[in-house]
Amino acid sequence: MAAGNRDGRLGVWLIGAHGAIATSVVHGLAGLVQGLLEPVGIATARGPLARLPLRPFPALVLGGHEVRRGSLAAAAEELVRHRVLSPALVAAAAAEVAALAARVRPGLPDAPAADDPALLPAAVALAQAPGAEQSARLAADLEAFRAAHGLERVVVVNLASTEAWRDEDPAWASRSAFEDALHRPGALPASCVYAHAALAAGFPFVNFTPNRAASIPALRELARARGVPHCGDDGKTGETLLKAALAPMFAARALKVLTWQGYNMLGNRDGEVLADPVRREAKIRHKDAVVRAILGDDDVHTAVQIDFVPSLHDWKTAWDFIHFEGFLGAKMSLQLTWAGSDSALAAPLVLDLVRLADFAAARGEAGEMAHTACYFKAPLAGGSHDFHAQFRALLDYAERHLAPR
Amino acid sequence: MAAGNRDGRLGVWLIGAHGAIATSVVHGLAGLVQGLLEPVGIATARGPLARLPLRPFPALVLGGHEVRRGSLAAAAEELVRHRVLSPALVAAAAAEVAALAARVRPGLPDAPAADDPALLPAAVALAQAPGAEQSARLAADLEAFRAAHGLERVVVVNLASTEAWRDEDPAWASRSAFEDALHRPGALPASCVYAHAALAAGFPFVNFTPNRAASIPALRELARARGVPHCGDDGKTGETLLKAALAPMFAARALKVLTWQGYNMLGNRDGEVLADPVRREAKIRHKDAVVRAILGDDDVHTAVQIDFVPSLHDWKTAWDFIHFEGFLGAKMSLQLTWAGSDSALAAPLVLDLVRLADFAAARGEAGEMAHTACYFKAPLAGGSHDFHAQFRALLDYAERHLAPR
Amino acid sequence: MAAGNRDGRLGVWLIGAHGAIATSVVHGLAGLVQGLLEPVGIATARGPLARLPLRPFPALVLGGHEVRRGSLAAAAEELVRHRVLSPALVAAAAAEVAALAARVRPGLPDAPAADDPALLPAAVALAQAPGAEQSARLAADLEAFRAAHGLERVVVVNLASTEAWRDEDPAWASRSAFEDALHRPGALPASCVYAHAALAAGFPFVNFTPNRAASIPALRELARARGVPHCGDDGKTGETLLKAALAPMFAARALKVLTWQGYNMLGNRDGEVLADPVRREAKIRHKDAVVRAILGDDDVHTAVQIDFVPSLHDWKTAWDFIHFEGFLGAKMSLQLTWAGSDSALAAPLVLDLVRLADFAAARGEAGEMAHTACYFKAPLAGGSHDFHAQFRALLDYAERHLAPR
Amino acid sequence: MAAGNRDGRLGVWLIGAHGAIATSVVHGLAGLVQGLLEPVGIATARGPLARLPLRPFPALVLGGHEVRRGSLAAAAEELVRHRVLSPALVAAAAAEVAALAARVRPGLPDAPAADDPALLPAAVALAQAPGAEQSARLAADLEAFRAAHGLERVVVVNLASTEAWRDEDPAWASRSAFEDALHRPGALPASCVYAHAALAAGFPFVNFTPNRAASIPALRELARARGVPHCGDDGKTGETLLKAALAPMFAARALKVLTWQGYNMLGNRDGEVLADPVRREAKIRHKDAVVRAILGDDDVHTAVQIDFVPSLHDWKTAWDFIHFEGFLGAKMSLQLTWAGSDSALAAPLVLDLVRLADFAAARGEAGEMAHTACYFKAPLAGGSHDFHAQFRALLDYAERHLAPR
Repeated sequence: MAAGNRDGRLGVWLIGAHGAIATSVVHGLAGLVQGLLEPVGIATARGPLARLPLRPFPALVLGGHEVRRGSLAAAAEELVRHRVLSPALVAAAAAEVAALAARVRPGLPDAPAADDPALLPAAVALAQAPGAEQSARLAADLEAFRAAHGLERVVVVNLASTEAWRDEDPAWASRSAFEDALHRPGALPASCVYAHAALAAGFPFVNFTPNRAASIPALRELARARGVPHCGDDGKTGETLLKAALAPMFAARALKVLTWQGYNMLGNRDGEVLADPVRREAKIRHKDAVVRAILGDDDVHTAVQIDFVPSLHDWKTAWDFIHFEGFLGAKMSLQLTWAGSDSALAAPLVLDLVRLADFAAARGEAGEMAHTACYFKAPLAGGSHDFHAQFRALLDYAERHLAPR
Repeated sequence: MAAGNRDGRLGVWLIGAHGAIATSVVHGLAGLVQGLLEPVGIATARGPLARLPLRPFPALVLGGHEVRRGSLAAAAEELVRHRVLSPALVAAAAAEVAALAARVRPGLPDAPAADDPALLPAAVALAQAPGAEQSARLAADLEAFRAAHGLERVVVVNLASTEAWRDEDPAWASRSAFEDALHRPGALPASCVYAHAALAAGFPFVNFTPNRAASIPALRELARARGVPHCGDDGKTGETLLKAALAPMFAARALKVLTWQGYNMLGNRDGEVLADPVRREAKIRHKDAVVRAILGDDDVHTAVQIDFVPSLHDWKTAWDFIHFEGFLGAKMSLQLTWAGSDSALAAPLVLDLVRLADFAAARGEAGEMAHTACYFKAPLAGGSHDFHAQFRALLDYAERHLAPR
Repeated sequence: MAAGNRDGRLGVWLIGAHGAIATSVVHGLAGLVQGLLEPVGIATARGPLARLPLRPFPALVLGGHEVRRGSLAAAAEELVRHRVLSPALVAAAAAEVAALAARVRPGLPDAPAADDPALLPAAVALAQAPGAEQSARLAADLEAFRAAHGLERVVVVNLASTEAWRDEDPAWASRSAFEDALHRPGALPASCVYAHAALAAGFPFVNFTPNRAASIPALRELARARGVPHCGDDGKTGETLLKAALAPMFAARALKVLTWQGYNMLGNRDGEVLADPVRREAKIRHKDAVVRAILGDDDVHTAVQIDFVPSLHDWKTAWDFIHFEGFLGAKMSLQLTWAGSDSALAAPLVLDLVRLADFAAARGEAGEMAHTACYFKAPLAGGSHDFHAQFRALLDYAERHLAPR
Repeated sequence: MAAGNRDGRLGVWLIGAHGAIATSVVHGLAGLVQGLLEPVGIATARGPLARLPLRPFPALVLGGHEVRRGSLAAAAEELVRHRVLSPALVAAAAAEVAALAARVRPGLPDAPAADDPALLPAAVALAQAPGAEQSARLAADLEAFRAAHGLERVVVVNLASTEAWRDEDPAWASRSAFEDALHRPGALPASCVYAHAALAAGFPFVNFTPNRAASIPALRELARARGVPHCGDDGKTGETLLKAALAPMFAARALKVLTWQGYNMLGNRDGEVLADPVRREAKIRHKDAVVRAILGDDDVHTAVQIDFVPSLHDWKTAWDFIHFEGFLGAKMSLQLTWAGSDSALAAPLVLDLVRLADFAAARGEAGEMAHTACYFKAPLAGGSHDFHAQFRALLDYAERHLAPR
């Protein structure tokens, strides 16, 4: 297909298909297509990015993997109860939701307890298999989805829960080491197996989670070898977005940031998972690195706290305290309180990234999509944590590709 | 002088020489020269800007105009009491402060009450004279300063109190109309007379206030005709800086800002003057325009409130409430509380602007210094209110002039 | 009837029957009676107050006056859209809402523009009549309501929009002067005419608004003469509640409050009306008096700002900044941000007050109900603005009346 | 001595004599006596409490124990640098500070590392001795202080650093078990040994720390047996004070608190010690218990976080987030940001408590001083965590003892 061919249909495969973000994606997409929603929050629908020949929303077909029992209907009901989705939108999207529900396949849980009653038995069973077999099963699902719907391409998006932190592993360092590890049960995080399945099958991969996924050297190598574009890690939806947008101001004004404390409260499934210190490790590392990197100052005192606060449900709330020194030794402060719906912030970024990954694949780009750095807490490439520089890089990319071809 | 000649001495003429900002400038400069202070808050002392061949701090000689009774010593004592200046710095800067005090000349008040006991009689008397005579007297002070200290150049910085708002006046529209008005008593704001005195004498002019000053067409024309660089209006030190830094993030993410309310509390002389609605008009207009301009959205509901809160003295505190809509119609919010010393935020910007105006004059630049837009709430030129774009323009300017000459 | 007789039915007459608070009252009451809602926010349903023999919720029958076109259904729909009422509750309450709607009668607008298209013609016509005729018409509506439903008593609750501020008037000083004024058209605020109608007819009156209503000497005298209990003014639902709860802490700790600034944002009909400076005058006075009274300090710098922010709709948000001095001259601060639904905060207080007014009437109490001071920004009686002292007074009242009689 | 005899001199013995609170006490007391400071923050100097015949400030003589190297002069300099103490006050208090410095004796560290270079060798040596010997040595210091200065009484105040958390121990359950443990090295927390020394010698004891001290049953028993009054634990100076003042408002209004999160940042020595999770355990327990106790609701989700943020030094800053439900299921929130000087908040409470303990001892009161509950996070007695009820109890106590005797 020539870049910009907007005629075919595009598959969007959501890992974590019953989660709050996926639920928001399917409802939001239906609302957009039916003209019930404005494309608020979707950067590719506005300004210069809107002039890129990206895949139109009606061409998107959704499918996905899931490891937990439950249903999209239950997830939607919960989002209605917590006032993220309106009952009217849920009613309007019923057909699209049913269609997606029918396409959801059991996925691969990371290090599941064998007797966890919340998990699908088929998912637990898959977790017992060697990695090579897992990857093949997941890839087969993707292929079947493509074939069943006559899709021109499938973009795979990882929206799974945060995995337990693992230190660097020699098995991640190269394709060959990785392929060996695929034959040792339990050697690889589920996210890496998913990424392997997608990339090996030639499908663009978007890692919206803090999980390792395609960020490890072995899979970066695979993506380049297979000529597949991918991007990640860890969608930048709230407090970290603010950090990346504000820290450059302090640097430009030569103000000396002494302390940047960030307190995050979250009440949905994501927050519940992150209540486990081993799981929140990656996320905290990503959130914490941004300020130091932008300020170019290793002495700044930073901390990131994530707390599970069930009453907030999807409405995450963060308080940042920035203590800084100005001229004459004067100590000053800035406080920020950010309160927003986690899912409503994330879902439009997923739609942006799917369209950009599709476009990059159509253009024949391979490897890390550096121009998407503005979407991630820990971008795989892009060279800066300054949000404005990152966004300018995206605009420059768009500028370069607006020319008629 | 060739651009970048750093050998001669540079005059810095402060209009409002006993004010809190001027007091902070003279103490801060002494502290920098004596190695007692780090150049925190001084962007030209850091990164690529530090590599520009700007005038070094020890070459700066201060003088100024003042219209009110009082003294630098009293102003310093007040800043010590309110914990902006340390007693140690005041002691160390005694000689420099005494030297500046000896050079302060009576200035031109705007529309003074004839019997205001706070004003210097000589200043009140000057206010009665026709504009042409006022301008000549002010220019003579500048020339005498230059001659007395063998200064290569004098940069004039307006730090005076905010004047009452005046609507556009035909007398401002052209040099010839302005020159006619110079002969009608009271026809012109004091700030315009100051700017005329400086520009007509060939001295670069920096308008750090919200006053009209050199922003009117007549004086822009004069500056170009005389080949003098100038910049303004209204130093961007706090809440408006935050707006200019954050609003681009909302635009980039296609989030729909519904409301941006800004509540400012200020307790120093500036705050006292701004308690008068007629005087705060210009400042509110400047502060309010930024968000709408960046978002490109005239429907956003904005308001700016400035309140005089004496107990805060120099420690201004602002609360901004941003209500925005994301995807799915979800309404979210961001709150900011900024607390900082007004003088300590402003003084380093004055030092930056003086050095940049000197450099521009040395290079033969004339008219509005578009590259200084990042310093101002209402830049005379520069084309954007996005702080990051403004700062990039300054870096680009620096990049162009770093080449060896 | 003996106090505590809980058998008969009680009328509740809402002035402003299509407003957001009345809409919340009718839905909330239906939800309580049907067991769909917990009595959250209803102090008389909890602790010692719950042991008072107050009228049970199923015995309450609603009616009301309204001056504006529109309907309860439209008001409910708006509250659903702004996520105050759930669609499920609106469905469940349909019969009760229809019953109330059928009982709403045209009321008396305050100083209406004759051609205001938003007003009911019958209401505009009533505004032209002399006060005595107005009062008689309003009283006839109340009596008809009582007769039609076999009510033991009717409590009249003023929930109308805020009226324009009027300075003290000699006509308010005594019953006789007031009765003269009833014959001069336009001499009296609508709220006073409503209060006169209720009290003259022997119906307890609750003034939830900042309007003059029964607070003027003439009507206080009437209430005592007629043996009717009443209470007001201005329901204490948010920022002022916080002030009344927190200021006593500063007094107890001997901390010196220097400044208490309160910034209120409101987006509903109440906020729209208060955007008019003449109308918000009374409210600001009430809100501002509390801090000074509790601290017993006239030097404290206070200010109250109310802004209309349409995007917030019913979700009012207030920011308070308290600057205080501690030992050693140390200056400290407390900031509060309160965000809540105006209607959901007010409606349960209305239910409490109706039940307490009914109980007081049953006991034969006459005049100001001092024990309800904790419900009001400007209590008619009660002697303290300290919320905790006010609430203790209510508990003491309850304690006294729990004994079997 | 008869209660109210105000002629003699009172000893005040500060455990932790070089700490920031003790440094603030000695400077503040000197400032009060010399008329340089107003008694801001000192409740006993205001209102009805000021009419109690408490010991006047000039009658107070300071002494103390310390375990760390360092000096009052160094502590004062640090408080000047961080803008808590003014240089003028430090100069004025020089004689009083020198007098206290000369009276400081090596104290008893809790579980010290033998080779900790920050500790005084004599303090480390004392830590090796059996408890009985330790207690005797500490008591001898108190007696020598009393004798040397002809003091009528000595009140001992524990201002030491927070000790590591220890679970309940059978040795604490009774006087006899405790006395056995005094012969087993290391069996008792240092705070209990200090309290034993004071109480056994008949000196009133104030525990301003979260340490066990006199709160254990054995020492409560001892205090009653010896007829000595004492109070504690854990001074209520900031965030917990706010909780105790605000939670009653939610209870009174029957609002349902869902979540109360408290984030505390602190940069002084206290903060440094509390960075150790084992040490902050007691403090977190005290802070966390208050909300649940006042609301009478075990389901409310609460959390307290304490972080060490060095740049803040003495200026502790806390953010509380309260999520609550109102009528109609509406979810609302309140946020608080408290920023104040830890030492300036604590020092006046110490002066209040010393005067109240002296008065109680003069009156012959023995055991827990229930009327001081308003000063403590975990009061030894008093029956309520509601700050307003606690303060009323103190006023009632004062009322009872104002009568001439």
